[in-house]
Amino acid sequence: MAQALAGFRPSRRTPAEPVPLDRALHRLPAAPVTAPHALPGFARSTVDGYAVRAADTYGVSDGLPGYLQLTGVVLMGAKPSVTVGPGAAVSMPTGGVLPPGADAVVMIEYTQQVMPGTIEVVRPVAPGEGVVRADEDAAPGAELVPAGRPLRAQDLAMLAAAGVTELLVHVRPRVTIFSTGDEVVPPEVITLRPGQVRDATAVALAAMVADAGGEPVPGGIVPDDPAALEAALRPALTASDLIVISAGSSVGARDETAGVVGRLGEIWCHGIAVKPGKPTLLAECAGVPLIGLPGNPRSALVVFRLLGVPLVRLVGGGTAPPAEPSVRARLARDLPSAAGRLDVIQVRVSDGVATPVFGPSALLSVLTAADGYVIIPEEATGLDAGTEVEVTIYR
Amino acid sequence: MAQALAGFRPSRRTPAEPVPLDRALHRLPAAPVTAPHALPGFARSTVDGYAVRAADTYGVSDGLPGYLQLTGVVLMGAKPSVTVGPGAAVSMPTGGVLPPGADAVVMIEYTQQVMPGTIEVVRPVAPGEGVVRADEDAAPGAELVPAGRPLRAQDLAMLAAAGVTELLVHVRPRVTIFSTGDEVVPPEVITLRPGQVRDATAVALAAMVADAGGEPVPGGIVPDDPAALEAALRPALTASDLIVISAGSSVGARDETAGVVGRLGEIWCHGIAVKPGKPTLLAECAGVPLIGLPGNPRSALVVFRLLGVPLVRLVGGGTAPPAEPSVRARLARDLPSAAGRLDVIQVRVSDGVATPVFGPSALLSVLTAADGYVIIPEEATGLDAGTEVEVTIYR
Repeated sequence: MAQALAGFRPSRRTPAEPVPLDRALHRLPAAPVTAPHALPGFARSTVDGYAVRAADTYGVSDGLPGYLQLTGVVLMGAKPSVTVGPGAAVSMPTGGVLPPGADAVVMIEYTQQVMPGTIEVVRPVAPGEGVVRADEDAAPGAELVPAGRPLRAQDLAMLAAAGVTELLVHVRPRVTIFSTGDEVVPPEVITLRPGQVRDATAVALAAMVADAGGEPVPGGIVPDDPAALEAALRPALTASDLIVISAGSSVGARDETAGVVGRLGEIWCHGIAVKPGKPTLLAECAGVPLIGLPGNPRSALVVFRLLGVPLVRLVGGGTAPPAEPSVRARLARDLPSAAGRLDVIQVRVSDGVATPVFGPSALLSVLTAADGYVIIPEEATGLDAGTEVEVTIYR
Repeated sequence: MAQALAGFRPSRRTPAEPVPLDRALHRLPAAPVTAPHALPGFARSTVDGYAVRAADTYGVSDGLPGYLQLTGVVLMGAKPSVTVGPGAAVSMPTGGVLPPGADAVVMIEYTQQVMPGTIEVVRPVAPGEGVVRADEDAAPGAELVPAGRPLRAQDLAMLAAAGVTELLVHVRPRVTIFSTGDEVVPPEVITLRPGQVRDATAVALAAMVADAGGEPVPGGIVPDDPAALEAALRPALTASDLIVISAGSSVGARDETAGVVGRLGEIWCHGIAVKPGKPTLLAECAGVPLIGLPGNPRSALVVFRLLGVPLVRLVGGGTAPPAEPSVRARLARDLPSAAGRLDVIQVRVSDGVATPVFGPSALLSVLTAADGYVIIPEEATGLDAGTEVEVTIYR
């Protein structure tokens, strides 16, 4: 399983496209973006107070105040009309432009206007105090955001500050999702015939794809018939960056899927040491990575979260897998596990205790009842009750 | 701060609207959704094998196999055409309908077809083994998803399985975002005049609102003028579920904002014990909650993440704040903090070590350089180097 996760690294990457800044959250920059000019662009006061020459305040204290002459006022968003000479002070709002001649701003809290035109100062300031330099947030040419890391809210803020209102990001990978199985019908079917089940997997896979930054493309339901599957896959290969098949659940159906995929490309592995999810297939067909998921919805969703979501991110230009919410909790009971197999255990979490939710792998209710999951790695042979575990929380 | 977080609980909630299932990820159901019928709806095999009467397998073993007569085949998605009588076995695919008369399925691994029409069985099965009951995933009327919890991928799967292709969710709260300040210009302005800064906050707030499930509504930039702010706020009150103002950064501008808000409604608190973010304002005007954020973008984003995101979720019908990704790490250095004040410390995280990123609160680069943040609670007077801390990771 770890080998499957680490080893299957298809080289496909989506190309770049421009997006406006207000649509760029969580998108992956195709190249680093650099500052076109210094930011904030001018030396700026960080406090309300008085712009001064710092040297004029040296040695002042509550007992021995200094006195400066008020020679002007800086207004927000305007160019200062005054220069600060020796012995002078200019009234400053937070965020105002530091006037020429000044090298610091004294906070208003440490001053008093003792008579019209004269400011008393009771604390000294060092040069640069109360001020951000013109290039302190970013020097011209400095990297504002790296390539391949999803843009966060503060990255958008920095780009806006720099006047970058459009940037190049990787195109969302098109992920075509097929469901297979003679028993599978669309969710819209109101009355089921005996033995029929509605397609539960496709809508959930599409949601996970979208969350991972991909564009889900519905491939529809394909019957358990190799010719039909091949006919569906061939055109999808030219229109997809990744293909996902929730394979038929019986042994025969799984083997048929592998047979078709093997004819269209190279199977990288078929069967991985994970529970649930053993019959997973990883392949690459004409440069398009392909995942064959187990037939039952629960196993399919578990495997896609572990293997598929990082693949969507990788193909879409991401340099690291997405961060997932997690909590620490203590196991409510022993969890047995076979060595050499990775186990994904669904758990509820309450008051710092993780209680496993068990049930046949065919049951979706095990997943919907869970708050998250615990992974028992290959090398472990189970975990004891009371062990502190990391629970990845579903969102 | 904790008081502000816990105490300000406006009663406003958005109404319900229908959404199709494939647009429902992360939406908040306005009411619980129950199963219209049993799921999977029929007793279903969970393995490839043979449907049998369990009693016919009792006592069998490798040394003493049992022999059953193969009387038929169940096909995927079809109603069984046979009944399983005493001594009989019917071939079953995984997911097939259990035929009448059978109460268990023997895995194919424990059987052998010794001659045409006769199956050898070497392991006994208990009644119910290899089978999920017709109502084992959900009984008719059982709750499939609760109200107020964001829909996750597996919830969509369960709803699809039940044939629920549309459901009632809370309308996304409309969050109108105002920026104020005579120095603030839109990000599109290419050449700034001295003292001007581009609006960095609005695009980032909009992104956080959308991530929290809200619908950001651009309110634009309002000059530092009480009459202009009041004229902007009045119509917004009738068109918003929540209002956010990034207030002017100078003391005078902040007081003016509070003055206008006080005239339009009730100020719940002005000034909270958080760093950065002290001059935050919380109010309720004509039933619409309002947050006044500090003027500098960095403080504004920090405070909105702590106070605004949970408010968006609450007004939108959420019953719990969203889960955030986090990691445990050890502090690289001492962090001083004043008791009675909550500190939000930006950190980089690498190899399990959290290194604080410091800088004036006016700098956005402190936020863009950070991987996440550590909270030093009110009651603490700082944290020592080496302390294990929980870092909330930005995404």
